[in-house]
Amino acid sequence: MNIEHKDIALHNETLGETHQRNLNRLKEDWGTIAIDQAIAKLVAFQIAIPSWALGTGGTRFGRFAISGGEPRTLEEKIEDVGLLHQLNAASGAISLHIPWDIPTDVEQIKKLAHQKGLLFDAVNSNTFQDQPNAPLSYKFGSLQHVNKAVRQQAIAHNIEVIKQGDGLGSKALTVWLADGSCFPGQLNFRNAFENTLDSLQQIYSALPSDWTLLVEYKGFEPNFYSTTIADWGQSMLLANKLGAKAKTLVDLGHHLPNANIEQIVALLLMESKLGGFHFNDSKYGDDDLTAGAVKPYQLFLIFNELVEGMDAKGMNHAKDLGWMIDASHNVKDPLEDLLQSVEAIMLAYAQALMVDREALVQAQQQNDVAQAQEILQHTFRSDFRALVAEARLRANAALNPLQLYRTLNCRAQLINKRGKNTTATGL
Amino acid sequence: MNIEHKDIALHNETLGETHQRNLNRLKEDWGTIAIDQAIAKLVAFQIAIPSWALGTGGTRFGRFAISGGEPRTLEEKIEDVGLLHQLNAASGAISLHIPWDIPTDVEQIKKLAHQKGLLFDAVNSNTFQDQPNAPLSYKFGSLQHVNKAVRQQAIAHNIEVIKQGDGLGSKALTVWLADGSCFPGQLNFRNAFENTLDSLQQIYSALPSDWTLLVEYKGFEPNFYSTTIADWGQSMLLANKLGAKAKTLVDLGHHLPNANIEQIVALLLMESKLGGFHFNDSKYGDDDLTAGAVKPYQLFLIFNELVEGMDAKGMNHAKDLGWMIDASHNVKDPLEDLLQSVEAIMLAYAQALMVDREALVQAQQQNDVAQAQEILQHTFRSDFRALVAEARLRANAALNPLQLYRTLNCRAQLINKRGKNTTATGL
Amino acid sequence: MNIEHKDIALHNETLGETHQRNLNRLKEDWGTIAIDQAIAKLVAFQIAIPSWALGTGGTRFGRFAISGGEPRTLEEKIEDVGLLHQLNAASGAISLHIPWDIPTDVEQIKKLAHQKGLLFDAVNSNTFQDQPNAPLSYKFGSLQHVNKAVRQQAIAHNIEVIKQGDGLGSKALTVWLADGSCFPGQLNFRNAFENTLDSLQQIYSALPSDWTLLVEYKGFEPNFYSTTIADWGQSMLLANKLGAKAKTLVDLGHHLPNANIEQIVALLLMESKLGGFHFNDSKYGDDDLTAGAVKPYQLFLIFNELVEGMDAKGMNHAKDLGWMIDASHNVKDPLEDLLQSVEAIMLAYAQALMVDREALVQAQQQNDVAQAQEILQHTFRSDFRALVAEARLRANAALNPLQLYRTLNCRAQLINKRGKNTTATGL
Amino acid sequence: MNIEHKDIALHNETLGETHQRNLNRLKEDWGTIAIDQAIAKLVAFQIAIPSWALGTGGTRFGRFAISGGEPRTLEEKIEDVGLLHQLNAASGAISLHIPWDIPTDVEQIKKLAHQKGLLFDAVNSNTFQDQPNAPLSYKFGSLQHVNKAVRQQAIAHNIEVIKQGDGLGSKALTVWLADGSCFPGQLNFRNAFENTLDSLQQIYSALPSDWTLLVEYKGFEPNFYSTTIADWGQSMLLANKLGAKAKTLVDLGHHLPNANIEQIVALLLMESKLGGFHFNDSKYGDDDLTAGAVKPYQLFLIFNELVEGMDAKGMNHAKDLGWMIDASHNVKDPLEDLLQSVEAIMLAYAQALMVDREALVQAQQQNDVAQAQEILQHTFRSDFRALVAEARLRANAALNPLQLYRTLNCRAQLINKRGKNTTATGL
Repeated sequence: MNIEHKDIALHNETLGETHQRNLNRLKEDWGTIAIDQAIAKLVAFQIAIPSWALGTGGTRFGRFAISGGEPRTLEEKIEDVGLLHQLNAASGAISLHIPWDIPTDVEQIKKLAHQKGLLFDAVNSNTFQDQPNAPLSYKFGSLQHVNKAVRQQAIAHNIEVIKQGDGLGSKALTVWLADGSCFPGQLNFRNAFENTLDSLQQIYSALPSDWTLLVEYKGFEPNFYSTTIADWGQSMLLANKLGAKAKTLVDLGHHLPNANIEQIVALLLMESKLGGFHFNDSKYGDDDLTAGAVKPYQLFLIFNELVEGMDAKGMNHAKDLGWMIDASHNVKDPLEDLLQSVEAIMLAYAQALMVDREALVQAQQQNDVAQAQEILQHTFRSDFRALVAEARLRANAALNPLQLYRTLNCRAQLINKRGKNTTATGL
Repeated sequence: MNIEHKDIALHNETLGETHQRNLNRLKEDWGTIAIDQAIAKLVAFQIAIPSWALGTGGTRFGRFAISGGEPRTLEEKIEDVGLLHQLNAASGAISLHIPWDIPTDVEQIKKLAHQKGLLFDAVNSNTFQDQPNAPLSYKFGSLQHVNKAVRQQAIAHNIEVIKQGDGLGSKALTVWLADGSCFPGQLNFRNAFENTLDSLQQIYSALPSDWTLLVEYKGFEPNFYSTTIADWGQSMLLANKLGAKAKTLVDLGHHLPNANIEQIVALLLMESKLGGFHFNDSKYGDDDLTAGAVKPYQLFLIFNELVEGMDAKGMNHAKDLGWMIDASHNVKDPLEDLLQSVEAIMLAYAQALMVDREALVQAQQQNDVAQAQEILQHTFRSDFRALVAEARLRANAALNPLQLYRTLNCRAQLINKRGKNTTATGL
Repeated sequence: MNIEHKDIALHNETLGETHQRNLNRLKEDWGTIAIDQAIAKLVAFQIAIPSWALGTGGTRFGRFAISGGEPRTLEEKIEDVGLLHQLNAASGAISLHIPWDIPTDVEQIKKLAHQKGLLFDAVNSNTFQDQPNAPLSYKFGSLQHVNKAVRQQAIAHNIEVIKQGDGLGSKALTVWLADGSCFPGQLNFRNAFENTLDSLQQIYSALPSDWTLLVEYKGFEPNFYSTTIADWGQSMLLANKLGAKAKTLVDLGHHLPNANIEQIVALLLMESKLGGFHFNDSKYGDDDLTAGAVKPYQLFLIFNELVEGMDAKGMNHAKDLGWMIDASHNVKDPLEDLLQSVEAIMLAYAQALMVDREALVQAQQQNDVAQAQEILQHTFRSDFRALVAEARLRANAALNPLQLYRTLNCRAQLINKRGKNTTATGL
Repeated sequence: MNIEHKDIALHNETLGETHQRNLNRLKEDWGTIAIDQAIAKLVAFQIAIPSWALGTGGTRFGRFAISGGEPRTLEEKIEDVGLLHQLNAASGAISLHIPWDIPTDVEQIKKLAHQKGLLFDAVNSNTFQDQPNAPLSYKFGSLQHVNKAVRQQAIAHNIEVIKQGDGLGSKALTVWLADGSCFPGQLNFRNAFENTLDSLQQIYSALPSDWTLLVEYKGFEPNFYSTTIADWGQSMLLANKLGAKAKTLVDLGHHLPNANIEQIVALLLMESKLGGFHFNDSKYGDDDLTAGAVKPYQLFLIFNELVEGMDAKGMNHAKDLGWMIDASHNVKDPLEDLLQSVEAIMLAYAQALMVDREALVQAQQQNDVAQAQEILQHTFRSDFRALVAEARLRANAALNPLQLYRTLNCRAQLINKRGKNTTATGL
């Protein structure tokens, strides 16, 4: 479905007065220049939507479908992301998953995406499930497998994914491996690592020169004794051995309890090995909850490191890292959930942009811990939502995307169009 | 399939000499009387097999089937448990899950179980998934649901499960609820608890007088913000409000990181509110690994509390608590996995029986911490496998069940009989 | 030291215009009535300061003193709390620790506290350390000890603490026990619990009729295998057996990783067994960091449950629970740290007061999860600091307490008065 | 104190028959050759005792002294380790901590150690506490400090420690840093890391050519927001930048909850960056409990990786890594505790030596997960204590060190000699 400009305009008009008042307050408090600089950065900032987040997610105990209207094809997935992007002007990319999203007509798909203003973000391979027609099973791993033939199948699949992505204009391959073991003794850790490295080297060799290989890590699940790329140290070790085009991808839910993720982010940036992000939130493990829903201050602290670290390296916030949501949606309309995630991410980014960095550096240099805390809390406790809304307004999107989505009965329209019993590919 | 007595006899003969030597060593070291007393208790000790553990388990990322031969019907599940029981004489009960295991011909099923020497352990209800024909969804909970009609449906289901179990001779209903919430604000915790209590009271009212209602708790998953019966305190609070027939069920994998489970067990026994166990092992969460595969010392410490606490209360080890495995099997043959779990449980029980309790009490009374540790470690470091094997031998089962299972090519036989592409009901 | 009214007045005048603007914005956005109601509640809300938080804290690896001026006597501790209360009008109580704070002249102390506008909050006993003159050691526990004589010594100490508190006007005894064990086998869990219960019953018997016995729990530390009152379930079990005057005290840092504290709070309120709070923040364990410094959203969610639950029970927010900070200060001036903690607590309380409860209930009734999240986030993302500041203004305290503390060089004044090498009693 | 040979001989005679029977059983079961090979390796294996573990440890809540006899001087510490080594012939080295253990007469100390058969293991620097005469404070870190002068002081201290160690014959410096931060904003993570690297480079430059620089990591404590060398990835990153003489030191208690330590060990060995170990056990954090007291199977699995990995690299088990205990002793006699730790470590090493590696590799190659588990469990469940005892016997030490220590009333003798109110330096 497509939202008509007049609907957005009407919505913005209705909320316009309040919004202007809020924005003016920010200008009054923080200065027009600082506010405008932040807005410009917010306008440029885009968060990719993964194709598998558009349908109902599930757990191993089952899946509860939403009321319907899930995208049944790649075209419909692009439509859904286009819808989000119309609403928030911050979801200008889609991240595809192969084999769930193999385009039948590449040119047609590219044209559709272009119409919707969407780029193709990193493509994702899948060696954590067996495909119906695959001769060999990934039950005991893929790139780590003791059997070279299985590794070759997985390598070939990844190279195929690169080709698919290259055709669409993607510039990165994300490799997330479920590889690991469930029981002590099952695996020789060293061999598993070395096999994985060797496999990744072959994939790396097939990478176009302007591509990035994003090596994701995860502490546990679906293997429950060991994971072969379990933490940032293992991912960076691989990335260093692979070469400059290989980088680490951080998924916020992939850490052991109590990990200081913002420190990891800072160190990866320092080493020029941070490649990108999978945003979500969690309380226990890889819970894949809406970004910012449980630990919004952590999200802010991560962005605080990102802004500081990227600026220190002279990096372009919008372009030099890959930003993507990776969440699952059990109890919400997936599109509403994605709108909430994007909002929380943009807000954390806005807060990080507004931190008084000079004062913070000074407090750090003086070990004035209380003052450093004051500076961060002052920013976090301020209300920058109007900043994010103004970025949308300037990009012709909605001041309140979720509210407009509901007002326009978007889900009902999607159900009308696609039916009640739809299932999107995904977990 | 059925194992012929002569196969068991041959196996035992082959291993007999070594076994006798090992057993004699134990008698030499620990005294014949103590050894014989322990063996008698081991012979009596039975661990129920859950019907859903007989097929391949999975994670939310997918399921990797075993090579085939999974039980397709309740009859075949009973056959599988019968096979295990033939091998280890310690799996003399099956725990059914409704609606996956509704018998079509109750008398036939009872007869079959009787032939196999099996009892029907606790029956398990399922309100964590929607059933195809159910009018209302459990997406937002069952016994906790804000909508009374949903609660009524879930209550009626539980009462139906009691009836099914009653027909087969079960004496307990296990209620595990996935109920909880994924996001802050989703739930009013108090109302959710009160609704759950009210629902459980109605189920409790329908309980036959000689039945037990086992209230299971779980810290997290599949809900990732809150779980409505999240810990032993919440379970016991409910059990206390329900009455004497309601007790707490402990699943080893259902705790927050680092929880001291053995202490929980001791306190529940103290309060006469421990009802039973779901055995498995885990490193991260509800990993459902083979019992004793990761933390065997913890399993021993738990049995140490069980033996001490049950003896203090004058309870019958074999009969006064419900013992069940609850594990999932991703990378092993499920039957092999169950044999390994039972072996680990029996061994931990054997170790606990052999603890020098008098000396331990003395060390505790004197705060001789090093000595108390020595006593437990001495027992744990001793090799009591011959005790468990002898218990099997006396019950006409195999000295080494896993070895015999492999020697007889049991899986191949099951595949021959049932085919390669079988799927058992379950997760 | 004492702050002169004119200094506060001057400070408030300087910040007044900006404050009024901010307050007016809130009135514009939320309505004058709602704002005024919240301010009235904030004015009434007081958080007790523990006497041991006024000096430098430490870890087992050492203590780094602040530059000086720590309170050397009970009188100076009262002065320090008086100073905080002058600044924020929200620290109107002091919580004493016996034997660190035994008054030599009770009437003099009461008079001094009265002058400073301070009440005496819960008194705290100490059986986690040996006192120089104590005949028996708490090395192996106190109320749990296998030796009755040790238990009697600990009971007598607690009764003495009650007497001390009674003389000063306290109305509650907080019992935090380090009791537990470091190694498997060291303790019989059941006996330890029963001894503890028996000891607490004797202390309970000595409690004046209008007193509360607050039973604190803690998951681990300083014992590292088991703690005898380890979680809310164990604390509530004891409180239920003791009687109506016994309640559970929640310290935010005393939980296992990932615990849902807000749910625990809601259930304790439901059972009328929540007695009070020790506020602090933490990332790993009992880190005793400044309240709200790491997980401000969790603090808000806890207050959200407190406000909802107390209102449901018709409780008085300010009077019916005990509110106290329990934090340690390694790298900050302790008084600055306490000002930051109080500010964070007041802000979380203010946010919770402003939640649109009617809308939240409606969203919950409709299982509109996204909307429920929107409601909580809308409140949390709004900037209510002016509410808290206005409450201070109305109570003649400072709009920005930390800033005024620094402007007036309070620490330098304290050093001048007390010297550089002072050490406050405490950990 | 010194144990007379005749006392050991008498002890061994008393236990000799039983021991021989147990040893013969092992030979019968596993073959004389394999048993003898393992014994030879056990005889060669030595675990260093840290000088600070000889006195009572404590927590931040206090310290409970043992009954007396703690070593008051470096000489007495060497005597205590000598005593342990007489008893178990496996504690042939002492690890010193500067400034607690600065020798006044180096030659005298070397002579004494030589008499006791002790080597000097890694020396340990201390920049986590301020020393009385130090001009600058480590309150805000040492090697990471924003102030270059503080870094220089810490660097100079480490170089001084190297000199002290060099004089005694040590070959390694262990750097454990408490450096980190307690609050968000306190630290610029990148600068802290870079400062630390720069400081370590200067220390590395001062390292004798045959020395190793051991870079220890720790997840948290005493800083509770971030630690600057927090995990193996950060330690290895530093070690890689420093050079071949820099390696990572693994302390078992320094990880986040649920970390798979054995995998970390395997990967560090793979990278030739594992330098050594601090053994202890823990349930919650850096609990510093007796090795093997809580998770003996984990200790076995770690040794399983060590043996496999060192053999794959052609390393000498006894010489190519640094083995040390790092535990604290609150509730036990420290010497008894150390005897228990050494016993547990030796047993885990013995078990790892006895793993059927060929069969394990085969099972791994076939993804026979159940069989791989059987192999490890078979070894772990066997009783190899006689192996460890025989290694002691062959080295003229006691069959049961703890029993002999008690029989000879060693603690009473130490108290007689040193008095009741002794305090050893340490935490």
